[in-house]
Amino acid sequence: MIQTILLKNRPAGKPKLSDFEFKKEDKNLTIKDGELLLETLYVSVDPYLRGRMRDAKSYVEPFELNKPINSGVIAKVLESKNDKFEKGDHVSGMLDWKTQQISNGKGLHKVDSSKADLSAYLGILGMTGLTAYFGLTEIGKPKEGETLVISGAAGAVGSVVGQIGKIKGLRVVGIAGTDEKVEMLKTKFGFDAGINYNTTEDMKAAINEAAPNGVDVYFDNVGGEISDAVLFNINKFARTVNCGAIAVYNETETPKSISVRPFLIKNSASMQGFIVSNFEEKFPEGINQLSKWLAEEKLTYSETIVEGFENIPQAFIDLFDGKNKGKMVVKV
Amino acid sequence: MIQTILLKNRPAGKPKLSDFEFKKEDKNLTIKDGELLLETLYVSVDPYLRGRMRDAKSYVEPFELNKPINSGVIAKVLESKNDKFEKGDHVSGMLDWKTQQISNGKGLHKVDSSKADLSAYLGILGMTGLTAYFGLTEIGKPKEGETLVISGAAGAVGSVVGQIGKIKGLRVVGIAGTDEKVEMLKTKFGFDAGINYNTTEDMKAAINEAAPNGVDVYFDNVGGEISDAVLFNINKFARTVNCGAIAVYNETETPKSISVRPFLIKNSASMQGFIVSNFEEKFPEGINQLSKWLAEEKLTYSETIVEGFENIPQAFIDLFDGKNKGKMVVKV
Repeated sequence: MIQTILLKNRPAGKPKLSDFEFKKEDKNLTIKDGELLLETLYVSVDPYLRGRMRDAKSYVEPFELNKPINSGVIAKVLESKNDKFEKGDHVSGMLDWKTQQISNGKGLHKVDSSKADLSAYLGILGMTGLTAYFGLTEIGKPKEGETLVISGAAGAVGSVVGQIGKIKGLRVVGIAGTDEKVEMLKTKFGFDAGINYNTTEDMKAAINEAAPNGVDVYFDNVGGEISDAVLFNINKFARTVNCGAIAVYNETETPKSISVRPFLIKNSASMQGFIVSNFEEKFPEGINQLSKWLAEEKLTYSETIVEGFENIPQAFIDLFDGKNKGKMVVKV
Repeated sequence: MIQTILLKNRPAGKPKLSDFEFKKEDKNLTIKDGELLLETLYVSVDPYLRGRMRDAKSYVEPFELNKPINSGVIAKVLESKNDKFEKGDHVSGMLDWKTQQISNGKGLHKVDSSKADLSAYLGILGMTGLTAYFGLTEIGKPKEGETLVISGAAGAVGSVVGQIGKIKGLRVVGIAGTDEKVEMLKTKFGFDAGINYNTTEDMKAAINEAAPNGVDVYFDNVGGEISDAVLFNINKFARTVNCGAIAVYNETETPKSISVRPFLIKNSASMQGFIVSNFEEKFPEGINQLSKWLAEEKLTYSETIVEGFENIPQAFIDLFDGKNKGKMVVKV
């Protein structure tokens, strides 16, 4: 039996289980020349998918209603009539939320289960690791001795950004939502300081204390008020990397914040958004560097693995309550 | 008799005449070796001076209370005991709002009254021209065929930015506050389209109409709601040059706007603030290029010249009501 998850409604505010629909079909899939039959092993759930559930112009096409949702998936090749892949291969790619599906192989890459756990290819060696790597190095342009502040620091991207920051010789300050996460930033990921935004009254002052020389690079995974507080502490020529705005993704009205413009002007500072695919040509370089650091044990990662295909929607919803530590992955 | 203008109060909101104080002294200034006696001919009044009247960290030191204000000035050398300057020379520099003053020559540059009107050295061949030139070329990075939108387009900086945009082969759209200014953008400065924000109900739609291919470069002289409306029309990889935020300089609370972050993320777009002195090393290149375009009649400029030293404070205040066309200069 093949299961599929469809987008039933465009969520208003925070996504609900009722925005998703499960379809079960009792059929056998048959492949033609050039095609592959794939069995889904791991599914990546990511905050940016919320944007694709909206019916609005964005960097990727919106999901269609009553069609399968897709995201990063690790699958096993059950049958192949495609020269590039063999039965038993593991592949990674953007695939539908289906337990089995047919692919023409386009956009799929083989992954090596002997080098790392398969789920790592959705995280540290996949889009999240590459997002951290290129966002920080290409946009943040970190220099030794500078101070890097990261919001959503205990998340999949944030925890990698901080570790790369340490490798590059920066002071690294992470902002997260529980004491446990803040502790993990310091003990597991080697951050210099951490701030729990849920228990801190004056974020502006707390950032000032944790970044006494001011903020040179701000890797922003959340947007919203936390990011406003960081602005008061930026240095001349500070760079903000706008990676995510999870704090405002679920807002139904255009969200407001303090005006960033006077801060940018008086500090000759910049803000830049990006999507990891802007750096697609450099992906091999990125994966190579991340694998090397991983092998040298300079990088470590967290993942939250939820079991069961039927739990994909809930795992996605839980992202917005910060229930994950590191990359959130569903094992099918 | 020597007159001086002092900062009496830090303005709350829009500056008032009572925030300034005039001092008159009946004395003769005597210079020592290395010094110059200067007579002020033209004084530049600029929106950024509002920021220096605040008691807050910024890119330049705040003005001190009960001390003279300073800004860009063109002066004539009345006497010289400095090898670099002779009696009768015209110089430009950051000088006090005084009818006469002594200088050690530091930071002063000779200007050539045979090549351009003296007031031009406070405008098109001074900080405003250089601000337009470096802001657009170094931060906006305009490419032929792209669309450039400029707010405060009829202002000193904006009108030069638009003309450079045309020289570089872009579609240029200007936003200004009166029909007369909009007309001038098109007839005098060669803009492709203009929008009067005071008579336009739906700025978002008006920008969409004037920039049918979307906005690639936004040169922002105003901040505030106009800039928010532009955000809805930016293209992938759009660059915003944050040059000024006159719309919010007078606000007493930290100003709010829509959150720019989701727009930057979904368009891989950037915003960058700057101050012209960041490019100080390249000033000769900039002045050279601007002079060349001026001589070739590819550039023209507007200036509003107010007469009388005693009218400097009012001329400054009038900037915030948009009473100037182009560079606002006071002829002493």
